[in-house]
Amino acid sequence: MAHSTRADRFLRACRREPVDTTPIWIMRQAGRYLPEYRKVRGTTDFLTLCKTPALATEVTLQPVDILGVDAAILFSDIMIPLEPMGLTLTIDEGVGPRIHNPVRTSDDVAKLAVPDPIAGTGFVMDAIRQIRQELAGKVPLIGFAGAPFTLAAYAVEGGGSRNYTHIKKLMFSEPKVAHALFDKLTETVIAYLRAQIDAGVQAVQLFDSWGGVLSPHDFETFSLPYLKRIVEGVKGRGVPVILFGTDLGLQLERLATTGADVIGVDWRMNLDEARARLPNTAVQGNLDPVVLFGPKSELEVRVRDIMKRAGNAPGHIFNLGHGILPETPVENAKALVELVHQLGKHTA
Amino acid sequence: MAHSTRADRFLRACRREPVDTTPIWIMRQAGRYLPEYRKVRGTTDFLTLCKTPALATEVTLQPVDILGVDAAILFSDIMIPLEPMGLTLTIDEGVGPRIHNPVRTSDDVAKLAVPDPIAGTGFVMDAIRQIRQELAGKVPLIGFAGAPFTLAAYAVEGGGSRNYTHIKKLMFSEPKVAHALFDKLTETVIAYLRAQIDAGVQAVQLFDSWGGVLSPHDFETFSLPYLKRIVEGVKGRGVPVILFGTDLGLQLERLATTGADVIGVDWRMNLDEARARLPNTAVQGNLDPVVLFGPKSELEVRVRDIMKRAGNAPGHIFNLGHGILPETPVENAKALVELVHQLGKHTA
Repeated sequence: MAHSTRADRFLRACRREPVDTTPIWIMRQAGRYLPEYRKVRGTTDFLTLCKTPALATEVTLQPVDILGVDAAILFSDIMIPLEPMGLTLTIDEGVGPRIHNPVRTSDDVAKLAVPDPIAGTGFVMDAIRQIRQELAGKVPLIGFAGAPFTLAAYAVEGGGSRNYTHIKKLMFSEPKVAHALFDKLTETVIAYLRAQIDAGVQAVQLFDSWGGVLSPHDFETFSLPYLKRIVEGVKGRGVPVILFGTDLGLQLERLATTGADVIGVDWRMNLDEARARLPNTAVQGNLDPVVLFGPKSELEVRVRDIMKRAGNAPGHIFNLGHGILPETPVENAKALVELVHQLGKHTA
Repeated sequence: MAHSTRADRFLRACRREPVDTTPIWIMRQAGRYLPEYRKVRGTTDFLTLCKTPALATEVTLQPVDILGVDAAILFSDIMIPLEPMGLTLTIDEGVGPRIHNPVRTSDDVAKLAVPDPIAGTGFVMDAIRQIRQELAGKVPLIGFAGAPFTLAAYAVEGGGSRNYTHIKKLMFSEPKVAHALFDKLTETVIAYLRAQIDAGVQAVQLFDSWGGVLSPHDFETFSLPYLKRIVEGVKGRGVPVILFGTDLGLQLERLATTGADVIGVDWRMNLDEARARLPNTAVQGNLDPVVLFGPKSELEVRVRDIMKRAGNAPGHIFNLGHGILPETPVENAKALVELVHQLGKHTA
């Protein structure tokens, strides 16, 4: 058994080093399923919470103590850097993010700024510093950003979308304008992640949440090159890069070409297949979040299966295949963390 | 060049026989993008249209004449057989299908009927007979049904869903109840498709529109066995069976084990990969529907690419990777059909 502890097992697994047990964190672990989070949100809207370092710190730390996960993730939203680019953002309960001046034309793209991350989103860096101080080395802190295609989809559609008609129409009709938009988003994300690293995050995750709506050709043309540029732009700064997408099971080998240290996979594939197809990266995932609504006996069966498929080689970080859902029973999330730590000892 | 014509090239391609040119039809080809359809809908709500054979016939025939596609598909909805099972269905513009008495418990499942398709949905069979008569052999008529998991997702969630929490919770917590529900849906679908075949449809398509939200284990446990039973239940009646799903690229080999004659694929994979992985079935697809919003030059590039990837072996039916979108310019849909017919002559 390796000489690692809760403080370093997540980062060791990112680097595919031996660990004392399988590390686990949960996407959206600071969220509405926690009564403690809902209490804070009772008096504060979502964007104010993101922009108030003391409150962002408070909710970031909640799941570290309540669930016992092995990493904290900055409480924020992938949409945050779009505001200083010049977009008008609201995030309303039940509606999700909305951009009130969506990007549709060459002029709209030209007007977008590539903001200085300190001037534009200094509250994020303040929160990171405060979280690191309060964590005091207990577990590492993960920073994050959205992938250019995913951010562009929001910016062009004006919010969530079913068919991605506007962004795809832009890509298919005016590819130069689309590439100019992806380029500005890429520069913004690189500067934003570098500033997060400078402020103290110890790993970064890039979310290409909507990349899975693209054909292989379009993914290779309009998303992958920008993912590569971002990974290259933040690598060599001493923190692992996690690349997560949904519906990207057919693109795993392409994702690995970005140079990301860790690839996050959703539950649509078996983890043994993911590990076989990703021999040179760590793998993060991949429990269906809805399993947390079922009985604990079934949870255990499925966690055992994932651990078995992850195998004995180092480099597995347990996570859900997507964010934890707002109605999830907290006790089941706790049980998941305990199970992973317990079962992980046998494989570590 | 094979001696086939518009009247039989679709059915020949389903059987992987040589054709004069690549056949094409378009999912949701009778729909809101057509002014002629909107005119009919101006005075008739969606369910009334489905239930009035003369009107269903009228809109079914529209794209055959307007676009020149090589098959008609019955105008109906996968939700139609749920009503005689005992569910209260509405389909409202912009909201989609809703079930007002969703299935949640063992008792709810026990109460569901396996309806006689003539007594419960005789209007569908009347429409089929009228359509066949009016088509007079010009092109074949496709019938269809929803796959049990997809129908169950609607029945349990009560409508469209983002996370499929209720249906998955039922599957994970009370698998026997879930299987009882899938079983009743399977029996209903088999009887429904047999009645459609008896009334005159010349091919059937099974839509597992939501199967892609399941993990491989859950797909194998809760969807695939029922797809197999349905294919077995309608095979040997002289009509090809098409199995279509979205987000099922990782499940292609499993889909082929159903015995379906044709597998429909969405645009998330390259068609040469699909054909290589499906050596013993025909393949249907797979243009991203949003390409029809771009310029014709780009449409041609992408159609050429799909035709090239489909290769020279018989057994490719051109289609979109999902339904045509309501805002699609009709002239682009027409251009697509012409392009496929023109380019298909070189590969046929």
